Amino acid sequence: MASEYRLRRRVQFYETDAAGIVHFSWFFRYMEEAEHALWRESGLSIHVPGSEYGFPRVSTSFDYHRALRFEQEFDIHIRVTAITRKSIQYTCELTDGETRIARGTLTIVCVRHRANGPMVSAEIPDEIRSRLQVAPGAPA
Amino acid sequence: MASEYRLRRRVQFYETDAAGIVHFSWFFRYMEEAEHALWRESGLSIHVPGSEYGFPRVSTSFDYHRALRFEQEFDIHIRVTAITRKSIQYTCELTDGETRIARGTLTIVCVRHRANGPMVSAEIPDEIRSRLQVAPGAPA
Amino acid sequence: MASEYRLRRRVQFYETDAAGIVHFSWFFRYMEEAEHALWRESGLSIHVPGSEYGFPRVSTSFDYHRALRFEQEFDIHIRVTAITRKSIQYTCELTDGETRIARGTLTIVCVRHRANGPMVSAEIPDEIRSRLQVAPGAPA
Amino acid sequence: MASEYRLRRRVQFYETDAAGIVHFSWFFRYMEEAEHALWRESGLSIHVPGSEYGFPRVSTSFDYHRALRFEQEFDIHIRVTAITRKSIQYTCELTDGETRIARGTLTIVCVRHRANGPMVSAEIPDEIRSRLQVAPGAPA
Repeated sequence: MASEYRLRRRVQFYETDAAGIVHFSWFFRYMEEAEHALWRESGLSIHVPGSEYGFPRVSTSFDYHRALRFEQEFDIHIRVTAITRKSIQYTCELTDGETRIARGTLTIVCVRHRANGPMVSAEIPDEIRSRLQVAPGAPA
Repeated sequence: MASEYRLRRRVQFYETDAAGIVHFSWFFRYMEEAEHALWRESGLSIHVPGSEYGFPRVSTSFDYHRALRFEQEFDIHIRVTAITRKSIQYTCELTDGETRIARGTLTIVCVRHRANGPMVSAEIPDEIRSRLQVAPGAPA
Repeated sequence: MASEYRLRRRVQFYETDAAGIVHFSWFFRYMEEAEHALWRESGLSIHVPGSEYGFPRVSTSFDYHRALRFEQEFDIHIRVTAITRKSIQYTCELTDGETRIARGTLTIVCVRHRANGPMVSAEIPDEIRSRLQVAPGAPA
Repeated sequence: MASEYRLRRRVQFYETDAAGIVHFSWFFRYMEEAEHALWRESGLSIHVPGSEYGFPRVSTSFDYHRALRFEQEFDIHIRVTAITRKSIQYTCELTDGETRIARGTLTIVCVRHRANGPMVSAEIPDEIRSRLQVAPGAPA
């Protein structure tokens, strides 16, 4: 069972913008990279082609404390903060050594869908739920 | 003086992901497109090369109600909800006709910076502040 | 029947990089935007969910003559230069008034695929082929 | 002195599109990741903030042999194939084990620029040129 994941990452050039810093939309991709690595660590994949289950994002946020620049290395630390029957919540900290870069949140829900049909809310399958747990000390 | 902007937009193929819908990180870019169009409408540019002023994002969020799909058309409606001496807040609604797609928020601050030096918090210059105002009826 | 398409476009902030210009990878997306608009003009969609046909890219290139900058407006002009039983070729010119910005090429092929199975080369369906033609005066 | 670089990489979710495969524009970013890693390996950075030198791309291409899918691992192998007074050429192979995924080319040139002024063609500085060399056995 996994409850958190830490990933080290370097800023790529195509992630920067004309202000010379990483574009703010990239932080959501960084957070998602860590989320998917957490799932892999748990023996899971967030997207299994042909599966009837999916995990769309329903809410997300980021607060930015410092800018990230080209070739800068930083850490992404994602933690599971809540699991309900149909949703999972995470928080995510980006840091460079002792410096806090940004803090994000993400809520995903479980859905079932048939080919080209609408997505319908669903309970998280047991084989997934049994492999993820809330991180110790995570904010309520 | 401008306080809101409405933009019609079509989903591009490169904005979709393997789940067949627009990747959630794109909504932040949609919101920013509308923000920059609002500034242009006011005779301003959010990024003037060589200017000592910049407007980094310090906080942003999105709640997702419906998915967007390839070639779908939708509206982006951004509104200024608060202006302080050093910051501007917006809310943003994405809709397709009567259907609510998503709702976002964005807070930016004014900074001054010298070449390769750190960014320092600054007051929004008058020539910018005088051209933007809070939208009537915007949530407090 | 359509053979070419012209699209006017403005550079978005998230398309720029720390060198202050549009990142070179974006030109391929600009070209594809125009390609998909050409297909729509012909009453077609390049990606129909659930369809067994797809049109993956097999070869593409760009030569860059000038940089594009934030908020710059430019034209994308795509033309069909060849259609064979299984492939379509395009050239694409990016210009700003009389100034040539870049020139690209793109070759796509038709494939059939079943859910999660491999893609297999296929002939372009007649209802698609009958709606596209080589642009007059296009380079051989 | 460095002449080639090999990078192992996993496909991220945001790199896929609604066809279920990596969008073709991403291959150019993969190639650039390897290029910048090659420069770092040589003790260089392709983008030094405040430097008067820059290295814009003037020509690039990719031929695609196989699709890449979410979470697939692959290798990027970039090699310097030519260095002139003002330009550098690379080829790049993407592979997954024995399977060839794609093959790219890239030509960059050296320019000098002043703040907000135009870019002017320039000779590659000796301290850069002395650290890069053509890879043995590279195609002419």
